[in-house]
Amino acid sequence: MGECNLYDLEPQPLLIVISGPAGVGKDSLIQHLKERGCELHFVVTATDRAPRPGEVHGVDYFFFTTEEFMRMKQEGELLEHAIVYGQCKGIPKQQVREALASGKDVIMRVDVQGAATVRRLVPEALLIFLTAASEEELEQRLRARGGDSPEQLERRIAAAREEMKCLDDFDYVVVNRDEELGQAADDVMVIIQAEHCRVKPRVVQL
Amino acid sequence: MGECNLYDLEPQPLLIVISGPAGVGKDSLIQHLKERGCELHFVVTATDRAPRPGEVHGVDYFFFTTEEFMRMKQEGELLEHAIVYGQCKGIPKQQVREALASGKDVIMRVDVQGAATVRRLVPEALLIFLTAASEEELEQRLRARGGDSPEQLERRIAAAREEMKCLDDFDYVVVNRDEELGQAADDVMVIIQAEHCRVKPRVVQL
Repeated sequence: MGECNLYDLEPQPLLIVISGPAGVGKDSLIQHLKERGCELHFVVTATDRAPRPGEVHGVDYFFFTTEEFMRMKQEGELLEHAIVYGQCKGIPKQQVREALASGKDVIMRVDVQGAATVRRLVPEALLIFLTAASEEELEQRLRARGGDSPEQLERRIAAAREEMKCLDDFDYVVVNRDEELGQAADDVMVIIQAEHCRVKPRVVQL
Repeated sequence: MGECNLYDLEPQPLLIVISGPAGVGKDSLIQHLKERGCELHFVVTATDRAPRPGEVHGVDYFFFTTEEFMRMKQEGELLEHAIVYGQCKGIPKQQVREALASGKDVIMRVDVQGAATVRRLVPEALLIFLTAASEEELEQRLRARGGDSPEQLERRIAAAREEMKCLDDFDYVVVNRDEELGQAADDVMVIIQAEHCRVKPRVVQL
């Protein structure tokens, strides 16, 4: 029986990506999972902006200079990155590597475009699409954010509709049915537990 | 947004197959899930033997004549069948069709060879391999059954070892770690819940 590893069933750590249209509650879901004390490594984003008072390097963000950021980008050391209003943001691979090596599942939230990038770079990532219970609810969420002009809001709604079409690129879809995100968080944890029972695990190479 | 069915997320019912080597606890697991009152259709086997006192048609078994049984076989109406000690046993497709049509997940236990047959006939079936926590434990379980001569026991152990090699044909592996099968039953229910979140559901055609 030496050729099979049937009794060597230590689960492989996963790289879990939470994505979905703007306004659907991705950040709230991640926050909820943190507050539950789930045994996950929550990815910390890197930025080249200066820390605000009270922000801690490696906790709130990794704070890098623009030069350091650009070097990481050139060396292919960013899992995903974007320049938003002239500020660099990205996810350094090293922390993901370290967490996976320690046997921890890693979870991150990215927008729908970012999820496509992660899928390309890490085909074995586990992609979860968070969605609203209805189109109306998604619109309501975007309206409730406030601060947008009617034209901006229309553009956001149209963009969210476009993002909804990317569902097919994902492995699982989780519906955010309640404000507290309890059911959605349960679903995410259930998906992770089930994935650990897969005969062919998703072995992440970074 | 008419072309996508993002908000039509009624989960597709699953055909779940519990398999694994002899002695690993397949029947006990099914019994445990029944006692928990899980919302599943538990497949009833058909046989051509006469009912014993107290046995109810459609509950304990479907009791058919040998002629009826053979007609179902010829018409391709059996999902799986075997003749054991001259008695016919098999799983009529019709009950599975009806249960799936009513939206219920269907669960059945078959031996490892039977699982391969189900996979061939129903590629979208969800195959779960139940295994022991160690090779020693599997041997102990087979010994504990009693009633075997030492030679018979050796043959059973050798056969179970061979069956363990079929793991690769399955979707998930669940380890039976405790006598009560509580953890294994949890894992099965978690796998079912996660599968209902799959973007590409397993749509069973029978």
